[in-house]
Order: sequence, then structure tokens, then C-alpha cells
Amino acid sequence: MKPIGTVHTDALSVPNHWTVSDVEGTLIIDDFYREGLMGIEPGDRIVVIFHFHKSRPFTPQDLTQHPRGDVTREKRGVFDICSPVRPNPIGMSVLTVTGINEAIISVKGLDMLDGTVILDIKPYHG
Amino acid sequence: MKPIGTVHTDALSVPNHWTVSDVEGTLIIDDFYREGLMGIEPGDRIVVIFHFHKSRPFTPQDLTQHPRGDVTREKRGVFDICSPVRPNPIGMSVLTVTGINEAIISVKGLDMLDGTVILDIKPYHG
Repeated sequence: MKPIGTVHTDALSVPNHWTVSDVEGTLIIDDFYREGLMGIEPGDRIVVIFHFHKSRPFTPQDLTQHPRGDVTREKRGVFDICSPVRPNPIGMSVLTVTGINEAIISVKGLDMLDGTVILDIKPYHG
Repeated sequence: MKPIGTVHTDALSVPNHWTVSDVEGTLIIDDFYREGLMGIEPGDRIVVIFHFHKSRPFTPQDLTQHPRGDVTREKRGVFDICSPVRPNPIGMSVLTVTGINEAIISVKGLDMLDGTVILDIKPYHG
């Protein structure tokens, strides 16, 4: 796995999930990959695969977790929730492209922290 | 990255994309992770993150590609198409759960080949 770019945002905190996020920011893609962005346009929705770089390591105790860390909610399997503490620390968000300039993609809907490493971008099929 | 299970299907070929697939099969999850499936039920749609294990290595020439290898179509950036030849060989499909028995999930909508290594399962939010 190699980084293809990083997430940048001024937001100091982000919502738990992209479905409830209006946070804006940019995806700064390494110049080597610029040609790979050809065809991505404002208004597109994109799937971004990223590394949960701030998550603690997964242990067997994390196989079930309280959703969103809320202890009043019943524990569920890690594969039934979006917790960042997972066997493989891979995240996925669907973002809306608001602009693109060379290898910098402006996006809306961020639930990733500033500095998050991006592993892949795919077109979104709803 | 560690495998959490593998895809099994009798289908010898699969459609290019889950949005057009009716192929059925099973996700056989390693028993160690069984508890992590708690809450997944028939009828659920799940996001499956997997390894494109049959793809050739990515080269700079692959930054733009003909969609679905169809040379009559104009080349597009790799991040704007679903080609399995990508900088990081990670795939993502949305499947429908048709049954679950211990650590075996029956699914419909496969676009992965038999033997594909599964890296993560997440709930789908449309």
C-alpha cells in the first residue's frame, strides 16, 4: 500500500460519518498521479479509500464495540459498524467534488481528519 | 493488511461491476472474526473491501485506461474508473446479504472472482 495523497481541512473536528458531514477541504494528490484524475469533475461523487492513521491497534476485544463509542448503545460486530478500530485500518467515505485544479480536488462531506493518507479514489455508483 | 476471509462462488466469470451482477456466492470469514459479524442480517447491504489478487502490477502507463478495456472508448483517469489495475489493488463492492450462518455470509451481486481475499466489511449507507 502506497499513499496517493493526503486530506487537508481546517476543521479541527469532523462528524463521525460522511452521511452527516458538510465539512469542506481538499484532497492533495501526489503530482505523479495527476493524469489518473482525468474525467473527475465538479458535482461528481467519489469514493475515497483511506488509512485510519490515528486509530489504536485492533485487539480481539474490539470484535464487538459500542457504536460511536456510546456505552448506552448495545455492542455490535466491528463489521456492522464504521468504527476506525478495525482489523485492517481502512476507511471509506463518499465525498462530493466541488472543484478540481491540477492535482488538488476540493471536496465537501469530509469525515476524515487533516493529514489522513489517501489510498484510492473510485467513481461512486449509488 | 491481513485477510479476514475469502470469496467463494461457482461462477466461472463475473460481471464487471456489482451494480449489474446477480451472481451468488459466499464470504467465508475466518472463525477468529466471527463475533465481528454480529448484527449483520439477511437483506442488509454490505460494503466489501477486497484485494484485486489477479491484477497485473500498476505502471505509469496505467494512469489512464480505456474503460472496461474497450479500446473504442476514450481513455480516462484510473481514479475515474473501476479498473482492477490501480496504484493500490483495492476493490470495493456493495453486496446484498441473503443469509448468514456462523462465519459464512451468503451474498448476491458478486463481481469478485472465486478466491478473492477480503480485507474488510462495512455497513452500507446509500
